Amino acid sequence: MSLAVCPGSFDPVTLGHLDVIRRARSMFDEVVVVVAHNAAKHPLLSVEERVALVEGAVKDIPDVRVVAWDGLLADYLKQSGAHAVVKGLRGGADVDAELGMALLNRHLSGVETVFVPGDGALAHVASSLVKDVARHGGAIDDLVPPGVAAAVSAALDGGTR
Amino acid sequence: MSLAVCPGSFDPVTLGHLDVIRRARSMFDEVVVVVAHNAAKHPLLSVEERVALVEGAVKDIPDVRVVAWDGLLADYLKQSGAHAVVKGLRGGADVDAELGMALLNRHLSGVETVFVPGDGALAHVASSLVKDVARHGGAIDDLVPPGVAAAVSAALDGGTR
Amino acid sequence: MSLAVCPGSFDPVTLGHLDVIRRARSMFDEVVVVVAHNAAKHPLLSVEERVALVEGAVKDIPDVRVVAWDGLLADYLKQSGAHAVVKGLRGGADVDAELGMALLNRHLSGVETVFVPGDGALAHVASSLVKDVARHGGAIDDLVPPGVAAAVSAALDGGTR
Amino acid sequence: MSLAVCPGSFDPVTLGHLDVIRRARSMFDEVVVVVAHNAAKHPLLSVEERVALVEGAVKDIPDVRVVAWDGLLADYLKQSGAHAVVKGLRGGADVDAELGMALLNRHLSGVETVFVPGDGALAHVASSLVKDVARHGGAIDDLVPPGVAAAVSAALDGGTR
Amino acid sequence: MSLAVCPGSFDPVTLGHLDVIRRARSMFDEVVVVVAHNAAKHPLLSVEERVALVEGAVKDIPDVRVVAWDGLLADYLKQSGAHAVVKGLRGGADVDAELGMALLNRHLSGVETVFVPGDGALAHVASSLVKDVARHGGAIDDLVPPGVAAAVSAALDGGTR
Amino acid sequence: MSLAVCPGSFDPVTLGHLDVIRRARSMFDEVVVVVAHNAAKHPLLSVEERVALVEGAVKDIPDVRVVAWDGLLADYLKQSGAHAVVKGLRGGADVDAELGMALLNRHLSGVETVFVPGDGALAHVASSLVKDVARHGGAIDDLVPPGVAAAVSAALDGGTR
Repeated sequence: MSLAVCPGSFDPVTLGHLDVIRRARSMFDEVVVVVAHNAAKHPLLSVEERVALVEGAVKDIPDVRVVAWDGLLADYLKQSGAHAVVKGLRGGADVDAELGMALLNRHLSGVETVFVPGDGALAHVASSLVKDVARHGGAIDDLVPPGVAAAVSAALDGGTR
Repeated sequence: MSLAVCPGSFDPVTLGHLDVIRRARSMFDEVVVVVAHNAAKHPLLSVEERVALVEGAVKDIPDVRVVAWDGLLADYLKQSGAHAVVKGLRGGADVDAELGMALLNRHLSGVETVFVPGDGALAHVASSLVKDVARHGGAIDDLVPPGVAAAVSAALDGGTR
Repeated sequence: MSLAVCPGSFDPVTLGHLDVIRRARSMFDEVVVVVAHNAAKHPLLSVEERVALVEGAVKDIPDVRVVAWDGLLADYLKQSGAHAVVKGLRGGADVDAELGMALLNRHLSGVETVFVPGDGALAHVASSLVKDVARHGGAIDDLVPPGVAAAVSAALDGGTR
Repeated sequence: MSLAVCPGSFDPVTLGHLDVIRRARSMFDEVVVVVAHNAAKHPLLSVEERVALVEGAVKDIPDVRVVAWDGLLADYLKQSGAHAVVKGLRGGADVDAELGMALLNRHLSGVETVFVPGDGALAHVASSLVKDVARHGGAIDDLVPPGVAAAVSAALDGGTR
Repeated sequence: MSLAVCPGSFDPVTLGHLDVIRRARSMFDEVVVVVAHNAAKHPLLSVEERVALVEGAVKDIPDVRVVAWDGLLADYLKQSGAHAVVKGLRGGADVDAELGMALLNRHLSGVETVFVPGDGALAHVASSLVKDVARHGGAIDDLVPPGVAAAVSAALDGGTR
Repeated sequence: MSLAVCPGSFDPVTLGHLDVIRRARSMFDEVVVVVAHNAAKHPLLSVEERVALVEGAVKDIPDVRVVAWDGLLADYLKQSGAHAVVKGLRGGADVDAELGMALLNRHLSGVETVFVPGDGALAHVASSLVKDVARHGGAIDDLVPPGVAAAVSAALDGGTR
């Protein structure tokens, strides 16, 4: 059983994330989506909400699990026996920014990180842009999996921004 | 009448911005410089000051207007009937960083974003670097249009930073 | 009337080219597709064939013309009164490679080059890759406009490779 | 059994190639190194020599096979049931150059290409640079697996350049 | 006597920094490591600690000095008579990000900035990643010079995060 | 005496090359411009012509010498006692393309390569573009040092292309 890990903040999960998860699953027998707590980044959604939204998005893809993780990704990689980390690739600059993290995780855990090109016109649209749109009252329904737009909207209404 | 939009925070406007605006105007009949409120970014200058400084910088270029905007750029693009967004191009990494925004704006408004290479030695000098120089007492007169250095200086003297 | 130029070898025209031409036309009143002779590059298709295939591909887009050109692009830009050159953008590296040409054309003609992000999964597939596929007997019908696959096939059958 | 493919010309195989093959093997149960004939590129070494040198280089890595292939890589990917293509990653520009090929292979075969960061100081040294060194009488022993330097040397002595 | 400057926050100094300092020293007679106060960035370590840790790391390299600096780097460059700024190069995106700073410093001081490729698998690992590892209880001993890990650990224990 | 090497084909020398040579000289006591024979690339100008044109271009810059070299650059670096190779930097992609060569030269000779940002609007205009302009009858006088345009013109008249 080959195992891949797709890590991130998923604040919120987007169609771009889902695309990468599907591609990871096409290459490996099992995929674990690791949702980082990232409390220092003051996420809009709680880690429980983020996990639940990813779970909803992947519920029809067999052998994909979702976990929350509050420590070093490298520690998760070692304890899970993962064969690879799979990240989406959004152009050269993106890879360069991710390269330090990839090499560090390899150094700490021995697990490789690979970059897979995304597909489609909105693969470059990051969670931060999605939140910006929602904050300004724009519709994000076609940027995120079903149910995510409502959760983002509720979090924005209940929060300070 | 073809219409281009040059969006940004312009905190403050630099000679690099002015260069891009001129190039946009050479390609399109009319240019609107859209100054984003960006309150979340805690700009040094108020949006009124930023608009006034851009207006001063472009006053000799015919058919260039300046507006403040507090919502989604895509909404402005739709309501103004713009034909294109024109952004300066400062090397490959710059484009990659801007690509998500460009695709998102196209998705939301149907308006294309194009990237135009800047010119000259200081085209890469961003507003944030200009402010850093001013904060440390350096002269920024030859990095910004006339009048901008004094406004930045006054804002730094009156502010907490 | 604003006028944009889309230059290239178009050996052969691909769906990626067509996508850029459509975007250029959405921004400018008129578009001229300039097919470079490029005899030094030993194109697979004659310049007449390449012009005819582009003409077939754009015949339903109003105000798009196709011309063959055997000299400096800058000379065409000057004599045509073009307002801009529009090129597709396929990621950071692509822009860097095109930057020298863009600056040279601006220097020689005063006309700007702008880069517009392409759309869709196959926008990165260059003419050279399309020819490679055809040479190895692969189907290219969904990479090129109608009629192009047959012309490439015929040229390959008649040629030395 | 998960299967990865490492394609290339391997003219000649370098330590950088070997590094990528090892990493691919750490992620997948089995790796096939596909040596492209690439007759059009006039390789220095015959495809038989190139296959033999890769075989020598990987003989101690279990479950790695080497095959020569003269058609479309996508056809090999389909007939072999590969789960992924694994390529080395040598910085942002490299990915951009490979992106068209990756998307094309996905389009033709449904198989993903992933990019894995290489390791070490000489991972950026391509086969073409290695041949340049050898042509000028430089030692390439520490750039290539054992036995390769002698084969390159023999080929250069017997060839026109 | 040729003089190079290696500027940075060094919060904390890493083996990657040390690698660049050594390379700068191989090209210039004397190297000054300029540690920026960067109070606005809320560094983990005080500037005195950062200077002391760099001094410890370079104590065996002749003709390398360490200074703290609280103003514009350009002012230091002018008053020190430096011939060049030497920065590490971590791939194309990295250079693009540094280019504005390099051009600004040249504009303000007349001193060139050059970029030198780093070496080894961990050259891409930035100070911020090192701090992330330490915050999560990971070992950073093989990412930083001797003594740095203990100082980072002490600062994290005494701080709010 | 610190010594830098500026290598290249210089077919022909451009104002961009001259800019890099001047910057190298501002950092090092002495600069040697190494003109590679590069017979395999079928240069337009003979190596003697190329050396003479560079010599004419640098004759007013003290302590700059020009040599022709037919072997490995690394061998020249070792025998000359050079402290650094200085190359111009034309954006991220450019660095990535040069990185393999830089690492290889360091491996073979122990000498570092550094990249210095160029200046001005035409720094991106490569020799190959300059030749293209001249071949099509365009004026290249403001792209190259005095005397070079005439030499290129003569070579084109006398050659097959």
